[in-house]
Amino acid sequence: MTTVSNGEKKSLLVFSAHSGDFVWRAGGAIATAAEQGHDAKIICLSFGERGESQGLWNNPGMDLDTVKKVRRQEAEQAAEALGAEITFLDLGDYPLAVDLEAFDRIVDLIREANPDVLMTHVANDPYNRDHNLAHETLLRARMVAQAQGHKNGYPPIGAPQVLMFEPHQSEMCGFVPNLLLDITPVFERKRAAMEAMSAQRHLIEYYTDLALRRGVQAVRNGGSKSILQAEAHQRIFPIVATAVL
Amino acid sequence: MTTVSNGEKKSLLVFSAHSGDFVWRAGGAIATAAEQGHDAKIICLSFGERGESQGLWNNPGMDLDTVKKVRRQEAEQAAEALGAEITFLDLGDYPLAVDLEAFDRIVDLIREANPDVLMTHVANDPYNRDHNLAHETLLRARMVAQAQGHKNGYPPIGAPQVLMFEPHQSEMCGFVPNLLLDITPVFERKRAAMEAMSAQRHLIEYYTDLALRRGVQAVRNGGSKSILQAEAHQRIFPIVATAVL
Amino acid sequence: MTTVSNGEKKSLLVFSAHSGDFVWRAGGAIATAAEQGHDAKIICLSFGERGESQGLWNNPGMDLDTVKKVRRQEAEQAAEALGAEITFLDLGDYPLAVDLEAFDRIVDLIREANPDVLMTHVANDPYNRDHNLAHETLLRARMVAQAQGHKNGYPPIGAPQVLMFEPHQSEMCGFVPNLLLDITPVFERKRAAMEAMSAQRHLIEYYTDLALRRGVQAVRNGGSKSILQAEAHQRIFPIVATAVL
Amino acid sequence: MTTVSNGEKKSLLVFSAHSGDFVWRAGGAIATAAEQGHDAKIICLSFGERGESQGLWNNPGMDLDTVKKVRRQEAEQAAEALGAEITFLDLGDYPLAVDLEAFDRIVDLIREANPDVLMTHVANDPYNRDHNLAHETLLRARMVAQAQGHKNGYPPIGAPQVLMFEPHQSEMCGFVPNLLLDITPVFERKRAAMEAMSAQRHLIEYYTDLALRRGVQAVRNGGSKSILQAEAHQRIFPIVATAVL
Amino acid sequence: MTTVSNGEKKSLLVFSAHSGDFVWRAGGAIATAAEQGHDAKIICLSFGERGESQGLWNNPGMDLDTVKKVRRQEAEQAAEALGAEITFLDLGDYPLAVDLEAFDRIVDLIREANPDVLMTHVANDPYNRDHNLAHETLLRARMVAQAQGHKNGYPPIGAPQVLMFEPHQSEMCGFVPNLLLDITPVFERKRAAMEAMSAQRHLIEYYTDLALRRGVQAVRNGGSKSILQAEAHQRIFPIVATAVL
Amino acid sequence: MTTVSNGEKKSLLVFSAHSGDFVWRAGGAIATAAEQGHDAKIICLSFGERGESQGLWNNPGMDLDTVKKVRRQEAEQAAEALGAEITFLDLGDYPLAVDLEAFDRIVDLIREANPDVLMTHVANDPYNRDHNLAHETLLRARMVAQAQGHKNGYPPIGAPQVLMFEPHQSEMCGFVPNLLLDITPVFERKRAAMEAMSAQRHLIEYYTDLALRRGVQAVRNGGSKSILQAEAHQRIFPIVATAVL
Repeated sequence: MTTVSNGEKKSLLVFSAHSGDFVWRAGGAIATAAEQGHDAKIICLSFGERGESQGLWNNPGMDLDTVKKVRRQEAEQAAEALGAEITFLDLGDYPLAVDLEAFDRIVDLIREANPDVLMTHVANDPYNRDHNLAHETLLRARMVAQAQGHKNGYPPIGAPQVLMFEPHQSEMCGFVPNLLLDITPVFERKRAAMEAMSAQRHLIEYYTDLALRRGVQAVRNGGSKSILQAEAHQRIFPIVATAVL
Repeated sequence: MTTVSNGEKKSLLVFSAHSGDFVWRAGGAIATAAEQGHDAKIICLSFGERGESQGLWNNPGMDLDTVKKVRRQEAEQAAEALGAEITFLDLGDYPLAVDLEAFDRIVDLIREANPDVLMTHVANDPYNRDHNLAHETLLRARMVAQAQGHKNGYPPIGAPQVLMFEPHQSEMCGFVPNLLLDITPVFERKRAAMEAMSAQRHLIEYYTDLALRRGVQAVRNGGSKSILQAEAHQRIFPIVATAVL
Repeated sequence: MTTVSNGEKKSLLVFSAHSGDFVWRAGGAIATAAEQGHDAKIICLSFGERGESQGLWNNPGMDLDTVKKVRRQEAEQAAEALGAEITFLDLGDYPLAVDLEAFDRIVDLIREANPDVLMTHVANDPYNRDHNLAHETLLRARMVAQAQGHKNGYPPIGAPQVLMFEPHQSEMCGFVPNLLLDITPVFERKRAAMEAMSAQRHLIEYYTDLALRRGVQAVRNGGSKSILQAEAHQRIFPIVATAVL
Repeated sequence: MTTVSNGEKKSLLVFSAHSGDFVWRAGGAIATAAEQGHDAKIICLSFGERGESQGLWNNPGMDLDTVKKVRRQEAEQAAEALGAEITFLDLGDYPLAVDLEAFDRIVDLIREANPDVLMTHVANDPYNRDHNLAHETLLRARMVAQAQGHKNGYPPIGAPQVLMFEPHQSEMCGFVPNLLLDITPVFERKRAAMEAMSAQRHLIEYYTDLALRRGVQAVRNGGSKSILQAEAHQRIFPIVATAVL
Repeated sequence: MTTVSNGEKKSLLVFSAHSGDFVWRAGGAIATAAEQGHDAKIICLSFGERGESQGLWNNPGMDLDTVKKVRRQEAEQAAEALGAEITFLDLGDYPLAVDLEAFDRIVDLIREANPDVLMTHVANDPYNRDHNLAHETLLRARMVAQAQGHKNGYPPIGAPQVLMFEPHQSEMCGFVPNLLLDITPVFERKRAAMEAMSAQRHLIEYYTDLALRRGVQAVRNGGSKSILQAEAHQRIFPIVATAVL
Repeated sequence: MTTVSNGEKKSLLVFSAHSGDFVWRAGGAIATAAEQGHDAKIICLSFGERGESQGLWNNPGMDLDTVKKVRRQEAEQAAEALGAEITFLDLGDYPLAVDLEAFDRIVDLIREANPDVLMTHVANDPYNRDHNLAHETLLRARMVAQAQGHKNGYPPIGAPQVLMFEPHQSEMCGFVPNLLLDITPVFERKRAAMEAMSAQRHLIEYYTDLALRRGVQAVRNGGSKSILQAEAHQRIFPIVATAVL
């Protein structure tokens, strides 16, 4: 892991299949990056307008455009609470679809952000295939963004680490956390972001409890006893380090 | 990973099934720890006297005691080159055997060292079951050393990370490196240690080349372009961190 | 597993990549559902007209339309023998292709059937990628059918279990059965269905023997000694139960 | 899964490496079996006297015999709250050891109980090798108890299912739940059992929250919306069933 | 795979946990080696006297010595039918136990046979832990037999391939065949060997059918259409070859 | 593995995602096939013009057509050095795309070549999704080429084995070699081919060293001590054999 205290500004870029995913699953990581002075950017591939907006569809007379508008507002508010920029690609959900034009734009966004770390969903979530597509899209776009011969105003990127954030049912998705992130210092930011997601209020308590459970595990894995809340993530690529202690 | 530059002295403890393993597979990590001012200790469970001393047995009239004596001298010389302390338990090799008394002593050594990081072989090497036993012994002894009710002058240890170093045929052992350690600054120390192992000279070139190959991969995974040599390791437990960038 | 004896009618929906798959691999499960008074429906994504109709193509002058017509007749006859309804989507085989329109229709069919259990192929069959596509299509369509914001006359479905039926070479496909279904009471129905498949007669003996072998294993795993024939299936999702005994 | 409502009394037998494990990890399953009129028996291989009794060792002047005595009393009280019989083998912990005599007694206990379901720890917990040994011992003893030629007053057992209960850090142990057990009706019993474990009070809130999280997942996997608490378990062997719906 | 037609006599050595395993699971491989002029040797670690002799124990008044005597006679007869030598170590079954003395003898037997190929059970059979111990013992003894410093009249062995033969429920044991052996030419020998096993007659039909099913798969995987019967095996180590076609 | 010495001409067909992959990863296998008198054919899905031509793009004023032209020339020269025919499909890289027309052509090429062995990339390379697509395309096209009802002048193919060649970071791709191919006799051909790839000169030393390392492993796995260089490959399907020795 890179040290962050030397004034070098870095960049985190998060791919969220639906506009709520980044809040529940990566809100702590995003707020941590922002709080430590780095750039944090979020790309929402869709608004989760069809599949993850139950709270809105329960209102009589609701229509797709309104759902998307509300979801956008909520996600913007959540991103602001976390200290991050947010971009919406509006590619549709349930199922999400990424055509060539959208893919090309995603490559551009990656090159523009030139991230040190990318973050997205797991590779294989049997409950939610939109998550898989977000994962695959990120890996493919990362590869293209590295290609020296790819057209573009921005130069090729290096080899950013990719983190997968925690899915709803981790064991069913082959998720094995190798990074427990202490989010105690930013948990109020994450809570504020969660509270912005009115269409999914039922999840707030669930993810608050999950953060405590991951916090207990962080302490059990040698973390500081002061850790209360944590987020679980899984790095895909090996890290490169200059020390083992 | 813990930063090491603040004067806080930490401790690395390495379990080597045979007296050469720590040199070929973890020499860079050990030298790095020592070079950065930390304690580095090695426990050799055996001398590899029967199974890994071909060079010596080729001498006419060789006997077991002589092999062990030479292997001890070479390993001491190698440890010195790396900057580490070394302890020999002389438990026999091919097959290695760890009885209750030996196990008890190992627990004591772990408590005494109070390591921040433990290091040993992979869990399942089809070529070499002594390696597996070293792995299992370390995990069991770590567990006992954590027990509050275990007799002992030393207090229970915390939850040190465990690293597995690279086996000879990584893919056959399910080894997937998640830590590529830059050993460029200490590679001369590792080479000196390797050259002390006269019974296995044929391995020097092999492990020198391997270090270069892992170095190339470290650069490809986002490491500094100045990296020439690296060692591959695999952390078992999640790391606890306070930043993602 | 749900008890079925209380008069509550349930629904099984089977996705068959080619028009024979449901017979060989799931005929017992389908006949069991029908025999117990439930709805059993089959969706054939293709007729297997190009890849699984050797017996027909060996006739001189055979053409694609004739093969499809015969395969349809045989599959209808097999479905009738099993007691199930059957729908043909005629999406082509070798390779199977599912475009947006077909996908949309599949979602409609799932909502209409409102199944308690879905059944299809494994995720990764190296011999037959049409099987994989059927699997992926089912998981994606299940997800969309659950979305509250998805247009449709029918309401969103719940969370039906998904079963994978046995592939030809189970070990090569990562298939690990966790459900051995006693098909002794309906085996004559399955045999009648198999005998309807004239284009693949060579498989009848093979699958009759397989049923006996799985029957032996069912007894060995604690099943009633009266079990003669069984079918192996693998549930994807955890089951929810109110008892452990 | 077997139906339980017809007056046929069945038997559950639980292997607990330490005297608290059965409470935290399987208390709901045990209470469910008891509540439904079945026999529930627990075998504690050790008292967890050295490794899982922090709360007691923190008392000045504590000694091993006292810890064991208190742990026994607490476990008896917990078993009573769950409605189960309990047997203590006192084989030692951290590390647990099972010698030939103990193994033989365990086989006798299995034959005597003639269980329909056995329950124990996962196969590979990197944090706690006592758990692994409990798992291995159960599988070996089950095999011996099935042998027709094994001496014994009791006849050979059949082929009882084996369930693994949830470890502390599920993903690190390769635990993939395939059974979410509704423990809502017996949760007060489980809470009472947990409250008996004074040496590990810090775990009560943790496992209470975990039960709620598994309850949410049970509903998400198609369980009744009335489920509040659940326990996650993983069956090792395929189940044999007579229906798919 | 080595060509065998050039008059070079090779050696196959099979470890059988119980005295019937080599017949059912490896009889075709053994007979093939013998038929082609090679040495085939079998080591029975036990007679399977307690766990795999149901047919004998059903006789009133049966005792352990008689069972072992009959099992020995049957296994000798089976080995003769296959054209192999057989050695009995009588280490006990259910559970099998390999003490130091037995292990030492096994190493001697391996060195004496100097095998080109070793063959045994899978690593992890949840139904039968004796099989696992046979596997582990073979890998450990192979390692010791390779050690230059190991005492012994015979010189160290090279690096023989290890094959695992098919367990009863392949998918439950992680068995993935990578070698389908045509046993058509020797099937009558295998049948004769199977018929010698009076205590397990119920298995003859089962394994005869299995051979046909594996034969069908061999043809499907590119084998000659003349193949009727096959045996499935899994090589552990990579093969070294001089051609890819 | 098939014997090759009897004058029967066989056919190897290699799918290379980019025009350099076949050289670095399979050059030895291709040269071996050619040297032994067989047909060796290479299909380059793209020129690797955007992603694997750094050496060319570093020249000022470089454009895509020139890169492709140079890459074609180099690949033709490399193929010639190896003794193979080469076909370029020019489907684009970073990302590679295979449309229906291209897929159809690929099926034709497979039928025309009627290969005994197919060779391509691994299934899951997190660094390079073009490799995955090449793998998937090969498995799908193989399946279609086997279909009796598929239009075409050429008859259906049989069941050719599929080999995966070694990816850059084997452990990250789940690559487990089960075939170490002795390429000592053809290494000069492979070197000549590598030297033709001017755009990737930095890889020559890397792959020369890798060949030596794999050579050492081949000897360690029982290969002839005369082996200097080897290539690692992984067969997907079981091999069918008539001997175990």
